[in-house]
Amino acid sequence: MKNWEAKLREITPYVPGEQPDFADMVKLNTNENPYPPAPGVARTMAELSAGKLSLYPNPEAKPLVEQLSKTYGIEADRIFVGVGSDDVLGMIFLSCFCSERPILFPDITYSFYDVWADLFRIPFTRVPLDENFRIRKEDYFVENGGIVIANPNAPTSVAMDLSEIEEIVRHNQDSIVVIDEAYVDFGGESALPLLDRYENLLVVQTFSKSRSMAGMRIGYAFGSKRVISAIYAVRNSYNSYTMNYPSILCGAEALKDEAYFAGTTKKIIATRERVKQEFSGLGFSFPDSKTNFLFATHESVPAEEIFTMLREKHIFVRYFKKPRIDNYLRITIGTDEQMDRLIGALKEYLDAKN
Amino acid sequence: MKNWEAKLREITPYVPGEQPDFADMVKLNTNENPYPPAPGVARTMAELSAGKLSLYPNPEAKPLVEQLSKTYGIEADRIFVGVGSDDVLGMIFLSCFCSERPILFPDITYSFYDVWADLFRIPFTRVPLDENFRIRKEDYFVENGGIVIANPNAPTSVAMDLSEIEEIVRHNQDSIVVIDEAYVDFGGESALPLLDRYENLLVVQTFSKSRSMAGMRIGYAFGSKRVISAIYAVRNSYNSYTMNYPSILCGAEALKDEAYFAGTTKKIIATRERVKQEFSGLGFSFPDSKTNFLFATHESVPAEEIFTMLREKHIFVRYFKKPRIDNYLRITIGTDEQMDRLIGALKEYLDAKN
Repeated sequence: MKNWEAKLREITPYVPGEQPDFADMVKLNTNENPYPPAPGVARTMAELSAGKLSLYPNPEAKPLVEQLSKTYGIEADRIFVGVGSDDVLGMIFLSCFCSERPILFPDITYSFYDVWADLFRIPFTRVPLDENFRIRKEDYFVENGGIVIANPNAPTSVAMDLSEIEEIVRHNQDSIVVIDEAYVDFGGESALPLLDRYENLLVVQTFSKSRSMAGMRIGYAFGSKRVISAIYAVRNSYNSYTMNYPSILCGAEALKDEAYFAGTTKKIIATRERVKQEFSGLGFSFPDSKTNFLFATHESVPAEEIFTMLREKHIFVRYFKKPRIDNYLRITIGTDEQMDRLIGALKEYLDAKN
Repeated sequence: MKNWEAKLREITPYVPGEQPDFADMVKLNTNENPYPPAPGVARTMAELSAGKLSLYPNPEAKPLVEQLSKTYGIEADRIFVGVGSDDVLGMIFLSCFCSERPILFPDITYSFYDVWADLFRIPFTRVPLDENFRIRKEDYFVENGGIVIANPNAPTSVAMDLSEIEEIVRHNQDSIVVIDEAYVDFGGESALPLLDRYENLLVVQTFSKSRSMAGMRIGYAFGSKRVISAIYAVRNSYNSYTMNYPSILCGAEALKDEAYFAGTTKKIIATRERVKQEFSGLGFSFPDSKTNFLFATHESVPAEEIFTMLREKHIFVRYFKKPRIDNYLRITIGTDEQMDRLIGALKEYLDAKN
């Protein structure tokens, strides 16, 4: 090892779901939305002016923040935006968890939480879910440096009631409590109504799932003015201009079409409920998903075997080789046609085994 | 103060140049390029497909990295890309300066360096420029945790010879040496030819200045495979997908038009040389700029007074109220027409004073 190598940071990064690219593939491995963004986004995109690119974008991403404010009825100075909810959550970890006490999050949850904690040297404790993959609220009634709860949780797909979320926030007035609502639009209960009562609450959402805009990288957080300005101070100490010109304008436009949003979300939920029935018939069991994916295990065939079999047919789902969940598959809800191809492949394989 | 407030990070952020928006303004305060990006960028932008936004972008920003590789003749696994060179430099600070020794950079330089050092709790020493705003290479021949040199430097506009840069790199084989070349295309000498000899060298460039794409947020670094992969490991521990779909495709396209790039760069240099002469005639002095801006002081009128006078006429330049440079203005080189309006306003004001 050379001397300069000793000055490099060594870290095990988060490994994202693979991004295969086959013409015939069914991609159900990264919880993307199978429908395109609202039609206004295509129009806005077509009207973008290359000439405007020579100037820096608005550092506060004003058109986007103002539309978020209008859509959700929350003041603009209580909204933080970033390059996907990963950037938003990363900035929250860096700016809101500055104590010696461990932050708390579930043992089975979004796998970036412990990576960010490691990256920013934040002590943390993984709190085990119960045997049904449920969060026990009482486990969070202890001293801590902060709390992060994905609701609905991933990859389990399980949602918590708002009353339980409120109990966690209420018992933790000395810490920032972050509710990561990446999947909330598919049937969860948002914690947004609690914001006016709890200054220490942050609610994080994303354009990557229900808004069909993973490719544009937009996430946002709602909180009190005090907390949001602390996050911006840190963000502005890292990069003053994170949101580029296309993301600011297309993001704002996407929010305006509430009917389209309601329609695609409803379609995904309907497909999910239908797939639940089919999956039960095939011998799968799964928690009652309130997300755009199922977290399923089969009564007799190992998850990894099914994962590999589907992969060979260019049907991509997510498999985590991790304690407690290594016999489960996380399967995104796509279009009805995509799910029919998945179900057909599963039927064929399982029939041949019997 | 509430208990949760004690857990927030308190930090003084970098303050970017203001982004005024008047129809009649002459904006010479953030070193933007007055010309639009290469015509291919407008074509690529028009062809972007909103339907593709529902998928995550390529996490390695492949089309962009491959084109950078082709344009600069450097292997793809020796290239890091980020959301502007601020993101690139921020990630370098976080991943390459992990020792107890102070990193070194000039006392007068890009004002983000000490902000990143503070943010990531990296010890640092500001090394004074000499009385002509020049970097003395010998000052960097001491033990350190890393070195960052902007070449040409900002806001001074002064360039260092490549032979001096090489001496600094050669004397610092135990640290990572970062050469920040945001302005190099306007007359500086790039350190790229040194890359094959020094594994500990990083060269950072940006699309925001010479490529006319500040609004798209694209920066990049070239280095050894070992160092670049260490930066990616940290980046992937923060956000796996930083470059969005429009930035990947438009960035790649911008690089292809070498004739346009050479043409606009040459025009800016020609305007700069003409403005130098006019400025001398008006009683200004300034270091010999190799950038797209002048760093100028007037023989009798205080810089702040000129700044305020210009501002009232909607001509925006940059003024830093900081030790050693509080009688200087940083003035971006715009189009000839913009510079004529600036020179006219200066002439009128200075004539009236005499």
